[in-house]
Amino acid sequence: MEKKGKRELIGNEGMIVLDMVRRLNRRGASDHLAKLIAKTHPADMAWIFRHLTEDERTAVFDIIGKSESVGEFLSELDDALVIDLVKGLSSQYMADILTEMASDDAVDLLEILPQELADDIRKHMGKKDRAEVDELLQYHPESAGGLMSPDFMFLDEELTTGDAIKSVQKRSEEKEMVFYLYITHGKRKLSGVISLRELLLHPAERQLKNIMNSNVISVTTDTDQGEVAHVVSQYNILAVPVVDSSYNLVGIVTVDDIIDVIREEATEEFLQMAGAGKDREILLKSTRESAFIRAPWLFASWVGGILVMLIIGAFKYELTQVIALASFIPIVSGMGGNIATQSSTIIVRGLATGRVNMGEAYKVVFKETGIGLILGLFYGSFLGIIAYLGFSDPALLGMVVGLAIFFSMVMSATLGAVIPIIFRRFNIDAAIATGPFVTTLIDILGVSMYLWIAKIFLNL
Amino acid sequence: MEKKGKRELIGNEGMIVLDMVRRLNRRGASDHLAKLIAKTHPADMAWIFRHLTEDERTAVFDIIGKSESVGEFLSELDDALVIDLVKGLSSQYMADILTEMASDDAVDLLEILPQELADDIRKHMGKKDRAEVDELLQYHPESAGGLMSPDFMFLDEELTTGDAIKSVQKRSEEKEMVFYLYITHGKRKLSGVISLRELLLHPAERQLKNIMNSNVISVTTDTDQGEVAHVVSQYNILAVPVVDSSYNLVGIVTVDDIIDVIREEATEEFLQMAGAGKDREILLKSTRESAFIRAPWLFASWVGGILVMLIIGAFKYELTQVIALASFIPIVSGMGGNIATQSSTIIVRGLATGRVNMGEAYKVVFKETGIGLILGLFYGSFLGIIAYLGFSDPALLGMVVGLAIFFSMVMSATLGAVIPIIFRRFNIDAAIATGPFVTTLIDILGVSMYLWIAKIFLNL
Repeated sequence: MEKKGKRELIGNEGMIVLDMVRRLNRRGASDHLAKLIAKTHPADMAWIFRHLTEDERTAVFDIIGKSESVGEFLSELDDALVIDLVKGLSSQYMADILTEMASDDAVDLLEILPQELADDIRKHMGKKDRAEVDELLQYHPESAGGLMSPDFMFLDEELTTGDAIKSVQKRSEEKEMVFYLYITHGKRKLSGVISLRELLLHPAERQLKNIMNSNVISVTTDTDQGEVAHVVSQYNILAVPVVDSSYNLVGIVTVDDIIDVIREEATEEFLQMAGAGKDREILLKSTRESAFIRAPWLFASWVGGILVMLIIGAFKYELTQVIALASFIPIVSGMGGNIATQSSTIIVRGLATGRVNMGEAYKVVFKETGIGLILGLFYGSFLGIIAYLGFSDPALLGMVVGLAIFFSMVMSATLGAVIPIIFRRFNIDAAIATGPFVTTLIDILGVSMYLWIAKIFLNL
Repeated sequence: MEKKGKRELIGNEGMIVLDMVRRLNRRGASDHLAKLIAKTHPADMAWIFRHLTEDERTAVFDIIGKSESVGEFLSELDDALVIDLVKGLSSQYMADILTEMASDDAVDLLEILPQELADDIRKHMGKKDRAEVDELLQYHPESAGGLMSPDFMFLDEELTTGDAIKSVQKRSEEKEMVFYLYITHGKRKLSGVISLRELLLHPAERQLKNIMNSNVISVTTDTDQGEVAHVVSQYNILAVPVVDSSYNLVGIVTVDDIIDVIREEATEEFLQMAGAGKDREILLKSTRESAFIRAPWLFASWVGGILVMLIIGAFKYELTQVIALASFIPIVSGMGGNIATQSSTIIVRGLATGRVNMGEAYKVVFKETGIGLILGLFYGSFLGIIAYLGFSDPALLGMVVGLAIFFSMVMSATLGAVIPIIFRRFNIDAAIATGPFVTTLIDILGVSMYLWIAKIFLNL
């Protein structure tokens, strides 16, 4: 509980710099502002930028745009803000910035821009940089190819340790941090890996192929980014080499990109589970755009609500006879909906983290049914007793609502587990299943079940 | 959509090894089994172990326990399974395993065991290892002190580059990967950092203090783990040094631990938002334990359901007059509940990722109200028209339900945004707010509002 409070500190420190930026900008003190910006980490600057007004952004970017860290700043900034900024800049200027950036970051930036604008910027880039960027652009942005950096260190296995150290010393302009050295044979086929530190432990004349670790974990260019994240976190490695279909080494994915992938996938999962689309940048959209993104997801529950309305309408006679029946409709669907949300969240998260194994999914479903039985029995009898005490007429009303809660909770726990598993089986994102879809279905089934039980037991 | 399908592959490969383990075990082919286990990464072995029956686990652990990778295996294994295993082992045996492990992993293991058992194991450890473990045990497990490893490389700033390289070569038994070398002055005060690669670029006689980067990002032992994760991912670093209150360097937290923290915090957030507790290991609990963990969270919605029942009961007369009113109760609370879930999920996730700034929270709330207005107007008029066409008597019923949906959605979007922000302001985990709490509150307010609107407009 208290730990979330501490996190605030960063926000507070950020707020102080944000206030300073604003004040300096208002005073037109651009020299001071430039100094402050130079002292601030580009990632922090991106955070601050997000909280400026549009006018402030224009003024502040005039200064950032002249600084060395403009490339890093842009790669830390939210996509929506980057698009706004870039639209106001010349293609030549953007091409110059991209040339200075690591090519994987440059590609990420090009990929969020409108096609025409991106093409125009690419045309203004130098031949060599453009070729590197074009190479990366061919991969799906959510694959290892789309994530990887082609700027990394690799050495032929025939080299000696001494030569290898000299190469490391020479290639000082490398952009990606060097901690693993990948070792290749032939033209560029991956044969092993060695850490820079291990390299230092061996005599200078020894050949790399004799000291390298040849059991190297790699991914291919078309490996999905979630899978890459899984490999990096499962084996606690700092980078994973990416090979093409002929096992040629073409790039590396570093752990900092993996952290972004994990965060982004979690955010998408949260939004999907809430039935709020999967656009990670929804907070930066305008009110109207947000409403537009969210409206379709509410339509499912709207249609569901109409169906429930028709079902209740069909039991009009029974309700007229025992008006108290209406009072229990919300609790029956509420308890069902809540236990279903528990079940489906646990299953969806279990599928995402590998805790739930599709081969033994039936076990998980049985368990959820069991949990539904226990909790249904508990809350069902509890409500049954209260209803019996509160409504003596008809005498069986307590039993009816108790049974309804019981059956509704058993069914909801089971469906809450089954539906994400079925979705996954058909390669549909399981997270979608836990949102409005499950709760709407539970509403329809739960209310029908309840009124039907009432009809039978109360002889209506 | 298709990407989730690909992730399955790892599961399938795992399933193949799992089947092999099972078959070899059934045949009692322990030599083959030992070979298979030796070839399998401890992290993969932990995954396989999770899917074995209890008898199989006993047999398989007999073999893993004799292998070198037992420590790594145990640190990859789920807490609940570790506890089960350790209970069957002697304290001396466990102490020997812990001695072989990195001390931060050893501490993580001790921390999940029952206090008495952990104390007993510690007593069996060697003096030096025990001191190291005791040192770490004093920190909160969710702080930088609890996460950090004390096995890392640090060098005095007076050393020359040549001496530094020699030190790196000498200390070959280090457990934590060396990629950053931390540089200290005085007894052990942090003064800077240099990467091993940068070290190689300078002449052997140059002193570290002249080449190091003195602008080093650090955290203190009591920094919350979420904050440490934030620092590591914000600045794209591979490790962060941990200092005590006198700025003495006492450990480092590496990025692989940060990935675990990010995953764990996301899982906890998911479970809390679904009102299913925050025990990450809920899938490993028995049916009865799971029911016990989840029951209290359902109680909130049960009480809410009773309140809604009483509210509807209070409008018994109105319902008897216009029985059709009952049919619309579920859609009114459903639409409110769903838009509230959207709003609160977006806000909770925004707070967790730093997108929502508490200083400007009112802006986000206004925006949610705006979105509620747009969507409420849309779905309200839509339902109003349908109700008008379907129920000509009373003529105003369409207007009543339309207005109810409109007001309920505006209120729900606003509350869905406000409640997590208020929770956060009082340092309560915002994720709790989006679960049963918000939907229950919305149910109560939405239904009251609806019936009250009906009473006024229909002159009941």
